[in-house]
Amino acid sequence: MNNDYKDIKVIGFDADDTLWVNETYFRDAELAFAKLMAKYETANKIDQELFKMEMKNLPLYGYGVKGFVLSMVEMALELSNNDVSNSTINAILNIGKDMLNKPVELLDGVEETLKTLSYKFRLILVTKGDLLDQERKLEKSGLTDYFHHIEVLSDKQEVNYSKLLNHLDIKPSEFLMIGNSLKSDILPLVSLKSKAIHIPFHTTWLHEQVNDDEKKNKAYKTVHSLLDLKTLLN
Amino acid sequence: MNNDYKDIKVIGFDADDTLWVNETYFRDAELAFAKLMAKYETANKIDQELFKMEMKNLPLYGYGVKGFVLSMVEMALELSNNDVSNSTINAILNIGKDMLNKPVELLDGVEETLKTLSYKFRLILVTKGDLLDQERKLEKSGLTDYFHHIEVLSDKQEVNYSKLLNHLDIKPSEFLMIGNSLKSDILPLVSLKSKAIHIPFHTTWLHEQVNDDEKKNKAYKTVHSLLDLKTLLN
Repeated sequence: MNNDYKDIKVIGFDADDTLWVNETYFRDAELAFAKLMAKYETANKIDQELFKMEMKNLPLYGYGVKGFVLSMVEMALELSNNDVSNSTINAILNIGKDMLNKPVELLDGVEETLKTLSYKFRLILVTKGDLLDQERKLEKSGLTDYFHHIEVLSDKQEVNYSKLLNHLDIKPSEFLMIGNSLKSDILPLVSLKSKAIHIPFHTTWLHEQVNDDEKKNKAYKTVHSLLDLKTLLN
Repeated sequence: MNNDYKDIKVIGFDADDTLWVNETYFRDAELAFAKLMAKYETANKIDQELFKMEMKNLPLYGYGVKGFVLSMVEMALELSNNDVSNSTINAILNIGKDMLNKPVELLDGVEETLKTLSYKFRLILVTKGDLLDQERKLEKSGLTDYFHHIEVLSDKQEVNYSKLLNHLDIKPSEFLMIGNSLKSDILPLVSLKSKAIHIPFHTTWLHEQVNDDEKKNKAYKTVHSLLDLKTLLN
């Protein structure tokens, strides 16, 4: 095993876009929404306005599909100047239900990697979003048995991870976080002096993007497949 | 201290309607919704249909305000045969935002009781609903420091508590749960051979109601104020 990880007792795995596909479904939903609203605005403008609406509502609704659907409904009323039809509102509700009912599509090497690591470490799932939705995805994924438990955080900032470490009763140096989002899964852990390994996903939500300055000289590692973890941590 | 509780290490407190007012706000929201839909149906029918819609959507949306609002929007489309106005949809969204923005109104004796018990036991908050909403309410309540941490469960059935005990690494006999809902806070714990103390609230959501048979001969205690816990557990 790489010597950097010799103190690790618990490994936290992000779920969405680290273990299974997620962001792709949000992109598809945004496209479907823009199509429904096409008579009122260009697709580009709708996309920008929806993002603004999500950011406005984020402090109140938090992350996850339900808040996203509520923001789409509000956006539809606003973009159309209260002209949108009931059938369009209904179609928006159905976009959300479809997202919640999506099958879980695992990324490459997930099961093999978790199996190997679970012999040696306590693994936990660390996500944000709707608790029920994340539990349901974990169950559908067939990966439940590899995890000691699931931690759903209302946000993934330094303060949330700090509470998590306290709750797990471990030192920062004993925790390794693995995920696709530099902003949510990596940089807060670097600040806390925990370990972090970044596995990029091909698409990143605008809200999760960080600029080059924010990642410069930060102590984390990047790999390009979960399977690389087997070598690093074994 | 009452001898029944001598093994207790961790006390779980339900939050809504145990520490602070909640159900009252849902009742107010249902009344406001019935008023908005008054041209289509009687208040009684609207109430019944909304409950059915919530139950239909519960497996998908789970507990909490956001799912409740999505169910009200869907109900408005259905009850009106797609005749409801955009301004009514907007008013429904605002009912939800108002609920999420409500101040926290503590029930009698909460702070005094938690303070006393926190010297002797590890206290945790055990709720269901939206994670962000519950964290926000805990913060507004000023009670954060009395709790080791918050556990938001997607449901409060025996299986959820069983996972919780496993996660807390304690035996069922070392856990005491306190709450207002027989169905969610008391009976599952009795089945698990944990301890449970029931503190009724003046109003109970239909979904949480249990019949007399279900509570007959069950090993739990009922008290009528949180302050009674000080005597029982000290």
